[in-house]
Amino acid sequence: MSRLPTYEDVVAAAARIDGHAHQTPVLRSSTLDARLGAQVFFKCENFQRMGAFKFRGAFNALSRFDAAQRRAGVITFSSGNHAQAIALAARLQGIAALILMPLDAPQAKIEATRGYGAEVVLFDRFQQDREAMGRALAAERGMTLIPPFDHADVISGQGTAGKELFEQVGALDYLFVCLGGGGLLSGCALAARAVSPHCRVIGVEPEAGNDAQQSFRSGQIVTIATPRTIADGAQTQALGALTFAIIRRDVDDVVTASDAQLVDAMRFFAERMKIIVEPTGCLAAAAVMQGTLPLAGKRVGVIVSGGNVDLQRFAQLVAQP
Amino acid sequence: MSRLPTYEDVVAAAARIDGHAHQTPVLRSSTLDARLGAQVFFKCENFQRMGAFKFRGAFNALSRFDAAQRRAGVITFSSGNHAQAIALAARLQGIAALILMPLDAPQAKIEATRGYGAEVVLFDRFQQDREAMGRALAAERGMTLIPPFDHADVISGQGTAGKELFEQVGALDYLFVCLGGGGLLSGCALAARAVSPHCRVIGVEPEAGNDAQQSFRSGQIVTIATPRTIADGAQTQALGALTFAIIRRDVDDVVTASDAQLVDAMRFFAERMKIIVEPTGCLAAAAVMQGTLPLAGKRVGVIVSGGNVDLQRFAQLVAQP
Repeated sequence: MSRLPTYEDVVAAAARIDGHAHQTPVLRSSTLDARLGAQVFFKCENFQRMGAFKFRGAFNALSRFDAAQRRAGVITFSSGNHAQAIALAARLQGIAALILMPLDAPQAKIEATRGYGAEVVLFDRFQQDREAMGRALAAERGMTLIPPFDHADVISGQGTAGKELFEQVGALDYLFVCLGGGGLLSGCALAARAVSPHCRVIGVEPEAGNDAQQSFRSGQIVTIATPRTIADGAQTQALGALTFAIIRRDVDDVVTASDAQLVDAMRFFAERMKIIVEPTGCLAAAAVMQGTLPLAGKRVGVIVSGGNVDLQRFAQLVAQP
Repeated sequence: MSRLPTYEDVVAAAARIDGHAHQTPVLRSSTLDARLGAQVFFKCENFQRMGAFKFRGAFNALSRFDAAQRRAGVITFSSGNHAQAIALAARLQGIAALILMPLDAPQAKIEATRGYGAEVVLFDRFQQDREAMGRALAAERGMTLIPPFDHADVISGQGTAGKELFEQVGALDYLFVCLGGGGLLSGCALAARAVSPHCRVIGVEPEAGNDAQQSFRSGQIVTIATPRTIADGAQTQALGALTFAIIRRDVDDVVTASDAQLVDAMRFFAERMKIIVEPTGCLAAAAVMQGTLPLAGKRVGVIVSGGNVDLQRFAQLVAQP
C-alpha cells in the first residue's frame, strides 16, 4: 500500500487546483433548517466543473505528472464522473486520455466524456474486470493509470471540497459525505480532523450495497456483488486500501440511504432549492433529511457531490406523482 | 403618479432586507462563455427566499408599514411569485395577508402561498379585473394594497438584486433583466446607472406579449391583451406609470424571447448548470444564449429571476426529445 495522504497533501492540492476548479457555493434551506431544528450547509459540488467533485482529484493527480507521463497520457476506468473529470483535466493540461466506461453508464456521461476529447472504450461491468482491463491497456500503451478513488493524489484533491466548506462556514458538528469508493469521504475526513476536530464525519452509501458499512464495522475490507441502485456513482464493490485505512481511522460512522430516500431528496432539492442533483449526489442529504438522526441544535455540513443526470431520467424520477 | 424611486431608495431597501433576504450566488458557465467569447454572470434569484427576487420588494414594502397598516394587513394580486413573496414577508413580519391569484396560476404557487399562511382568493384573469377587485377588497377591509410592480418600495426592493450583482462582480458592459411589469428591470436600472454607468441595461420580455417593447419604442404605455406564453410571470398587459418612467429614462433597449428559446435556456440551465429556472426566469438568459447580440469580449450580467415551476411541468418542458 502506498503512503496514506495527509491534510498537508489536501492543502497542497488546494493550491494546485486554485483557479482551475470552481469554489462552489454553499446553499441553505430555511424549510429544512426549521424542520430539523438544525443549521444545514449544502456544499454544492454539482456546480463544480464537469458537474461533480471528481474534477478536484483528477486535476490534482494530473498536475503531478512528470514530462514522460504527460507525453504518454492517462488512462482510467469509471462509471462516469471520474471519467469526465479525467477527460476535462487532461484536455486542460494537454494530456491524452483513454477512459474505460461501463456500457450502462448514463448516455449523457459517455457523450460528455467524448466531448472533452477523450478516447472511450466501453465494457460490461457485470461481466468484465475493469481494473484488469485498465492495467493491461496501461501497460500496453505506457499510460499512467489514475483510478477513481484509491490513489493519494485523488483523495487529496477530493478533500479540498471539505477544506473549502470549513473555510466557508467554520467549524461543524457533523459532516455527511456521499460514499462509493471512499475518495471524497476519506479526503473530507482528513480536512475535518485537521480544521474542525470535534466534527463527526459520517459516510452515506446506498442501502443496496453497504460494503463500506460492513467493512467499517468489521475492520476488514468487505467485497460485495455490484449493487443495483439508482446511485450509479456509488455502485462500487469494495473500498480501496487507502480509502479504507483513512475511513477506519478518521470517520465516525457509515450509514445508508434507500433509493426511495434518494428520490425524496432529489425532489426536495428540485422543488425547494431549485438545484439538480444526481441520485448519488443525494446520498449524504438523504441521511440528513430522514430526520432520524439527533441533529437538533447542530451545525451540519452536507456534501452534494454531483449533478450529472440525464434530464429524461431526472424527469422520470422526480415527476412521479 | 407617486414620486419615482431613486438609487438612494435601493440602498435603503438593501439595509432593510439585510439578514432577511438571501445574498444569492453568482454562477458561471465555462461552456457558454466559450461559445459567446464573453464573461457571463448569472445572478441566481431562483435561490432567493420563496424562490424568486420578488421577496426583496415585498419585504421592503412591508417593512415600511406603520402600526395601523400592520394591524389591518396587506392585500395584493399576483400571478404567483409576488403572492408568495407578500405571504412570506407578511408572515415574517407578523402581518395578515390576503392574496388574489389567477385560477390558472401554477398549483405549486397557490399551495405555497397558502402554506405561508395567507388567505387566497382566486379569480379568472381572462374575465375579471384584478386591480379593481383588489382595490374593492382593500377598501372593504382597510388593508394596504401592495401591487406586484408599480410601487416605489417594490421597485427599490427589486433593485437590490442588481445592486448586489454589481457588488459581487464589479462593473458590467451589459445587464439583461427579465421583464413583465418592469419592477425588477426598473430597480436594476437604477442600480446600474448609479454604480456601473456605462452598462447597457436590456429588458427581455416574451415575444408573445411585447407591450413593453412597443411602449419603449413609442414613448407611450401600450396595453395589450393578456399574452399566451409559458412565461407565466410575465403575462402583464402593460407597464406601470412608475416602471415605464424609469425604463424610458434608464434602460437602453427592450428585446424579446420566444417560448422555444425559453425552453432551450431552461434545458441549458438544467443540463449544464444544474439549476432549475422557471420559464419567466429564463427570459434574460434566453436573449443572451441566442448568440445574436454582439457580446464577444464583454462582461455580461444576467438576472435569473425565479425557479418556481411545478416539477411535472418542468419535466414536460425539458425532457422532450
